[in-house]
Amino acid sequence: MTTTRFDRLFSPRGIALVGASAAANSVAGQPLRYLTEFGYAGSVYPVNPKYTEMKGLVCYPDLGSVPDPCDLALIVVSGRHVPGVIDQCGARGIPFAIVLSAGFQEIGERGMENQRALEAALARNNVRIIGPNCIGMLNLNEHVHAGFGGAMGNPGLKAGRLAMVTQSGGYGMGMVAAADQQGIGFNYIVSTGNETNVTATELIGYLLERDDTDAVVAYLEGSTDGRGLIQIGRRALELEKPVLMWKVGNSSAGRRAATSHTGRLTAGPELFRRALDQGGYIEIGDTDDVVDLAQFLGYRKRAKGNRVVITTLSGGAGVLIADLCEQHGFEVPETAPDTLAKLKPISPELGSLGNPIDLTPQGYGDNFASYTRVIETVLEADEFDQAIVRSAPGSIAGVWSHGFVEMANRHDKPIVLQWGSGSERQEEAHAVVRAAGIPCFLSPRRSLNAMGAMYRFGVKAARFKERQAKTSVRPIDPQPLDLPNRGTLGERASKQVLARYGIPAVQERLIASDQIDALTAEGLTFPLAVKIESPDIAHKTEAGAIRLNVTDVAGLRAAAHEVVAAACKYRPDARIDGVLAQEMASGTEVIIGAVDDVYFGPTVMFGLGGVLTEVLHDVTHRFAPFDLATAHDMLAEIKGAALLRGYRGSPPLDVDALAEVLVRVSLLIADHADRIKEIDINPLFVRPAGHGVVAADALVVMHEPDVR
Amino acid sequence: MTTTRFDRLFSPRGIALVGASAAANSVAGQPLRYLTEFGYAGSVYPVNPKYTEMKGLVCYPDLGSVPDPCDLALIVVSGRHVPGVIDQCGARGIPFAIVLSAGFQEIGERGMENQRALEAALARNNVRIIGPNCIGMLNLNEHVHAGFGGAMGNPGLKAGRLAMVTQSGGYGMGMVAAADQQGIGFNYIVSTGNETNVTATELIGYLLERDDTDAVVAYLEGSTDGRGLIQIGRRALELEKPVLMWKVGNSSAGRRAATSHTGRLTAGPELFRRALDQGGYIEIGDTDDVVDLAQFLGYRKRAKGNRVVITTLSGGAGVLIADLCEQHGFEVPETAPDTLAKLKPISPELGSLGNPIDLTPQGYGDNFASYTRVIETVLEADEFDQAIVRSAPGSIAGVWSHGFVEMANRHDKPIVLQWGSGSERQEEAHAVVRAAGIPCFLSPRRSLNAMGAMYRFGVKAARFKERQAKTSVRPIDPQPLDLPNRGTLGERASKQVLARYGIPAVQERLIASDQIDALTAEGLTFPLAVKIESPDIAHKTEAGAIRLNVTDVAGLRAAAHEVVAAACKYRPDARIDGVLAQEMASGTEVIIGAVDDVYFGPTVMFGLGGVLTEVLHDVTHRFAPFDLATAHDMLAEIKGAALLRGYRGSPPLDVDALAEVLVRVSLLIADHADRIKEIDINPLFVRPAGHGVVAADALVVMHEPDVR
Repeated sequence: MTTTRFDRLFSPRGIALVGASAAANSVAGQPLRYLTEFGYAGSVYPVNPKYTEMKGLVCYPDLGSVPDPCDLALIVVSGRHVPGVIDQCGARGIPFAIVLSAGFQEIGERGMENQRALEAALARNNVRIIGPNCIGMLNLNEHVHAGFGGAMGNPGLKAGRLAMVTQSGGYGMGMVAAADQQGIGFNYIVSTGNETNVTATELIGYLLERDDTDAVVAYLEGSTDGRGLIQIGRRALELEKPVLMWKVGNSSAGRRAATSHTGRLTAGPELFRRALDQGGYIEIGDTDDVVDLAQFLGYRKRAKGNRVVITTLSGGAGVLIADLCEQHGFEVPETAPDTLAKLKPISPELGSLGNPIDLTPQGYGDNFASYTRVIETVLEADEFDQAIVRSAPGSIAGVWSHGFVEMANRHDKPIVLQWGSGSERQEEAHAVVRAAGIPCFLSPRRSLNAMGAMYRFGVKAARFKERQAKTSVRPIDPQPLDLPNRGTLGERASKQVLARYGIPAVQERLIASDQIDALTAEGLTFPLAVKIESPDIAHKTEAGAIRLNVTDVAGLRAAAHEVVAAACKYRPDARIDGVLAQEMASGTEVIIGAVDDVYFGPTVMFGLGGVLTEVLHDVTHRFAPFDLATAHDMLAEIKGAALLRGYRGSPPLDVDALAEVLVRVSLLIADHADRIKEIDINPLFVRPAGHGVVAADALVVMHEPDVR
Repeated sequence: MTTTRFDRLFSPRGIALVGASAAANSVAGQPLRYLTEFGYAGSVYPVNPKYTEMKGLVCYPDLGSVPDPCDLALIVVSGRHVPGVIDQCGARGIPFAIVLSAGFQEIGERGMENQRALEAALARNNVRIIGPNCIGMLNLNEHVHAGFGGAMGNPGLKAGRLAMVTQSGGYGMGMVAAADQQGIGFNYIVSTGNETNVTATELIGYLLERDDTDAVVAYLEGSTDGRGLIQIGRRALELEKPVLMWKVGNSSAGRRAATSHTGRLTAGPELFRRALDQGGYIEIGDTDDVVDLAQFLGYRKRAKGNRVVITTLSGGAGVLIADLCEQHGFEVPETAPDTLAKLKPISPELGSLGNPIDLTPQGYGDNFASYTRVIETVLEADEFDQAIVRSAPGSIAGVWSHGFVEMANRHDKPIVLQWGSGSERQEEAHAVVRAAGIPCFLSPRRSLNAMGAMYRFGVKAARFKERQAKTSVRPIDPQPLDLPNRGTLGERASKQVLARYGIPAVQERLIASDQIDALTAEGLTFPLAVKIESPDIAHKTEAGAIRLNVTDVAGLRAAAHEVVAAACKYRPDARIDGVLAQEMASGTEVIIGAVDDVYFGPTVMFGLGGVLTEVLHDVTHRFAPFDLATAHDMLAEIKGAALLRGYRGSPPLDVDALAEVLVRVSLLIADHADRIKEIDINPLFVRPAGHGVVAADALVVMHEPDVR
């Protein structure tokens, strides 16, 4: 998706600080202090015509006089001077700039002059900028603290393997500080501000590719780059490296604030959510989520399946953990008989050896060494893929943890440890277990939230790769279509478009208006539906231009005249192409829609007809094109899916034919999204298995040429 | 609900420890140590025939020789000796016992002999016991550490104003320890074990009434006392004191573990959830939830409404908090013009003064004193009921907090404070704000989860009191009914029962089997539905004993013979009371059901007919009897509610008549639950507003006399 490489942005060999100040706490003074005091190994060039020296460094009058190497300009001058500095960057050949200055579109009308001048400067120079109105960038591996505020000024932040792209500098830095306090480190952190030039999605895509990141945390208030989000989602699955997505600005007050904050739109929340759901994203909503997921991201053991064994010293904890496991899609199978036979001799009499296993708090005699033997026994059992272990209690945990970790290291199956309490008496144990890299938690809910999210990510990645590996053959090649440049196609013309992609529609005959009275029954099979055919009447029912269950030729003639009259009354200037005499189809009603979304591109919607779609909004979406397996996913995931499988004695419906049509619609919109804006098939009748589907009505809407 | 007072259980003047041991860490030795070393002011009487002295105390051979006062026996002898000790308690007049011993029904068949002996001993003695198989009771106000394990042995636990009833001693004590570490204290903690005698619901009800508790935390693996839960829920609303309910054992593996753990059933999860939803419960799922809610429980300021103002120094946080507010039902209204006029002179130029208010991090000059002035200004504004305030950043927060707290104390509107990061640089600020009792949080999500839960609790309590205050008049007095002792009523008889409670049904005539051929059209209005009337055929469609749309008298005769024949074939021994010739009613189909649930008592279900109920399970429940307002709540809360309000041009339906019928069904089942087990009205047709409802079919099922 992104071909621009940002290596020199994050690892600049030299940084020019334009508008540098020696005032230690000012926005201009903070980065000078951080870049000179925290260990950055590159060159720092203060630029300020008022000074010749600053903090012992040469101070340059302008960017033109700055020596090599200089890969980045950090700009803190006032908003109206920024465009001129961008011109200097272009002239000097500095490829990247970070604009900390505010006063652009984010303050509304007052800032638009600066905004337009900045955009013009960007258009005439080969410079990529971060911001304006951002708080800067951090590379903790190389001590590049190129910004101001909060955590930016903390030289003690430990580097880790998480990257962050944040549209809120303040909140993002707070997250870095809070995670650091819990032992979780970041490497690259960038605040994107107004995104006048470089967008959050470009940076996420870039950071995801870096070998030194385990995941990218994204804090987004909005993004219009839906296609970029879809592409990043696919790449994350390929790389098996998640994007931890914290999306805010979903409420009306939130959007109000987001707009004033960075002047950014929030693209369709439903498709946004779908992009996250389909791609390699894990949705988060708290810094705790980052801290918890980071433990799993750093753990190298992977479970081969979802079967969990739970070992506890208190039945209550076992019940709770088993509940959480099932909520998150894990199985908690019963202990197998041969495992039980091995457990019995090493377990206390009143213990419970099914799964969850509850040994009761009877292990003080041997510092719970026999508990560790029980854990080892279940780790070796074929019926379990991974273990959740409650720690030994209180101050005993310290002694116990050494033997436990030694045992855990001997086995490939992953373990999650849960502490009984956050007591300071367990500090030794905490240190021992963390040093071994074993994920450990005080809260069962938090541990399962993270474990469950990682599990679902793994399932998504595996399915994605499996489907990628199959060479998916298009059921039909791209078809040339004869389409108008704008407007709406009539029903018959719309169904002819569908027919080019092999989508079946009802039998019908077009009768010219002046042929109505000459009609005979020859070649007609009654009953029939009678409808107006006009590119100008998209809603025939509303126009009264439709008659159903017409049973003979006299009725057909009458109905034809009626619908023509109704259409002319509804819209006197409507072009009338004739009247359709159409087979009365039957079956279960479904709706298929397709749209070329302005942000997310071609997208297909599916829903059951009537109340389910219109009252309960029981619909689902996929980005086009997609394959048969994806189409079947759509059919399976709507709430009313049971209706398709055959409900209360009615036969199972032809879901194979339905899925095939979904695929063909996805190819049709994807092949022709340059011209087609919307497709509506409503209703499509689905018949019992083996009897196919048939479109009873359809509508194709073209893009307006001036909008494209 | 409970009349038994447990004061002497929790505040015993003397405690006999039966099976006492001097072995410090044993189950028998731990309570002796804790009761003698942690400051308990009552008398401690070790009972063990092997010793005459223990830890400097007189050791008694049996309970009979223990001196006064002795209110509680703490029993740690092995399971088979427990029944004998209960007899000694009875003889000695000791009102309460806590049985720590295990080996009863919780270990299955092996323990049933002990279990039966214990139940027999309880039946012949006036002794209330906690347990068996529990870890004991803690009264931190009076240092009564009457139990063993984990937090029980920590003399440093600080007392607070939360009580706890836990079915898992181990997990409950872990929660106490973890909460203590976060500064949240409990007062009374009781582990209920097998609940052979005293149940968790009795104890919750008792502790809720105590003036020294702000809330009761309940950790339940299961309860069969549905009626008790409903009653506690009502009382909690009356007292405006929530029960924080942590319900586990909802998964199949969890139930498996819960059964082996304490041998307890989990009553119908749907009605359990309804009882929580309707009563004064707040559902929790983590110790963090307790800690977070406790901050609000201890805060004395109450918001007059749900309008929140958000003040921040970073736009990103404001967007996030606004989202969370809307998710939890709070309004985030825009700042009013006169408030804006007051804010402008005291705010930085680039700030954003709508709501959320973002002052940007421009307050270092005056240690953010002007930020406090902004907060005070919005607290004084009429358009806001409460404030969420992000703290001043980093180490500045300490200085800032003094002025902030002083300002907050001058105002009645509640404030929630959110820290920007968990930095140790903010310790001073933490201490200052906590000392003022202002709820404060690092995580926006956690703060809004707790604030939202308290808000919803307040709304429930207010609505409950409002409805209690209205003297709800029954629309109909209890009606005597002529009912059989068992079995099922036929359709006509069932509808006659409904008629006694004023529930309208379709017009119909019962035709005796031998009168079919003599039928004339006189007095009949076609079309008609023809159905068998038999107490032995509950499912007429399945039996093929129903014909619809019969249009003339010849058809009626034929249909009547057919349904009799079908019924006789379906069930040759069926009693045939005749054939019903019934008006063909129409309208929107709904289903009303009522059941006398074995755990929760009389309950009414409502759903829309067809796919919505049967595929999407779009139904709702209320405990009977209930009033009209409650019936309207049921109609409003189903997912398909839009269908009742009039959907796509169809007229609004007669929801008033429908609500009235729901109330009448609730009275019918509540008045006669001693005999009626189930009522099914399916379908009930709902007509357009003003045209009422009509039951087209009904079924009444009696309790089996031997079960009752």
